Amino acid sequence: MASDNNKNTLGVTIWFTGLPSSGKSTVSRLVHDYLKAQGLKVELLDGDVARQNLTKGLGFSKEDRDENIRRIGFVCNLLSRNGVIAIAAAISPYRAARDAVRQQTNSFIEIYVNAPLDVCKQRDVKGLYKKALAGQLPQFTGVSDPYEEPLNPELVLYTNEETPEESARKVIAYLIQNGNVPATASAILISGRSA
Amino acid sequence: MASDNNKNTLGVTIWFTGLPSSGKSTVSRLVHDYLKAQGLKVELLDGDVARQNLTKGLGFSKEDRDENIRRIGFVCNLLSRNGVIAIAAAISPYRAARDAVRQQTNSFIEIYVNAPLDVCKQRDVKGLYKKALAGQLPQFTGVSDPYEEPLNPELVLYTNEETPEESARKVIAYLIQNGNVPATASAILISGRSA
Repeated sequence: MASDNNKNTLGVTIWFTGLPSSGKSTVSRLVHDYLKAQGLKVELLDGDVARQNLTKGLGFSKEDRDENIRRIGFVCNLLSRNGVIAIAAAISPYRAARDAVRQQTNSFIEIYVNAPLDVCKQRDVKGLYKKALAGQLPQFTGVSDPYEEPLNPELVLYTNEETPEESARKVIAYLIQNGNVPATASAILISGRSA
Repeated sequence: MASDNNKNTLGVTIWFTGLPSSGKSTVSRLVHDYLKAQGLKVELLDGDVARQNLTKGLGFSKEDRDENIRRIGFVCNLLSRNGVIAIAAAISPYRAARDAVRQQTNSFIEIYVNAPLDVCKQRDVKGLYKKALAGQLPQFTGVSDPYEEPLNPELVLYTNEETPEESARKVIAYLIQNGNVPATASAILISGRSA
């Protein structure tokens, strides 16, 4: 509705899904920071932000997980339909819940953060796999709860073969190619430890 | 961050507070529809939308009401800091909760929808006063739960003396005067049954 200049975007929801410790938060944070530094309107709703501000009190039953995703999706849609790049990073283990967000969102990019379960267990960023494997955490995705892989994600990141910076660059390249962000400074993108 | 044109705004949160049946939803809807018709970026989060999409499961204890307001405020802030006019319409009976939202929001306009309790009881749009007065609804604002009037609202609407259209015009006039929306077409503003 607003006329565009090079700091405006059409708005899009970028949805990172994957197992715990697959790298969703790390990569989405890099993408967010890069876009922000470009002067673009961007918001990141990762699992912790969402739990703190939107979904406190929800548990890990399928019903509660679906409500969690629905709620994050609702906010992403409010933002993206107003020209903001809304980034969500959430396990979002159920395909139907992700697809429902896709349906209600006018521009939706699903990014599957794909790392083998064994790699995620070894990373165990928050020490939760250990607890889950010891039987102390019921309904933990990848251990005692299912994760349904995306069937047709717009992009797959292999975070056991790529550095976080490489993964983030893939996302930015996709967004540029897809017309979601302007193709400025694409060469220097994200510096980092990668080759 | 983005340069402005006449369809962009700096973003603001407009917060309607008042007793049940005071007229919050009606007036905020008129304001929303007017701004939308002007091509501005605007979102309305009224009580029903919020309950459906953000705060399902919350009850009416002080703690739950505060969480409800905090959550709506969080989303309004996400929107307004990205240049959207975010309108909230919620009883929001506790002063401290409203003030907390004001503190966390970079541009906040509190509008007190002021109608005498007896008038609200007579309107009883949803038939809830009747139930509350019959003892069937505990913790109903104005009957069995407190409403703390704003001490320094930016604007007060007297919905027992003004038509909804007159109230909406007062809001728009304030927004223009305050620089939140451009001063275009201010003369024809909102048509309606008023004189």
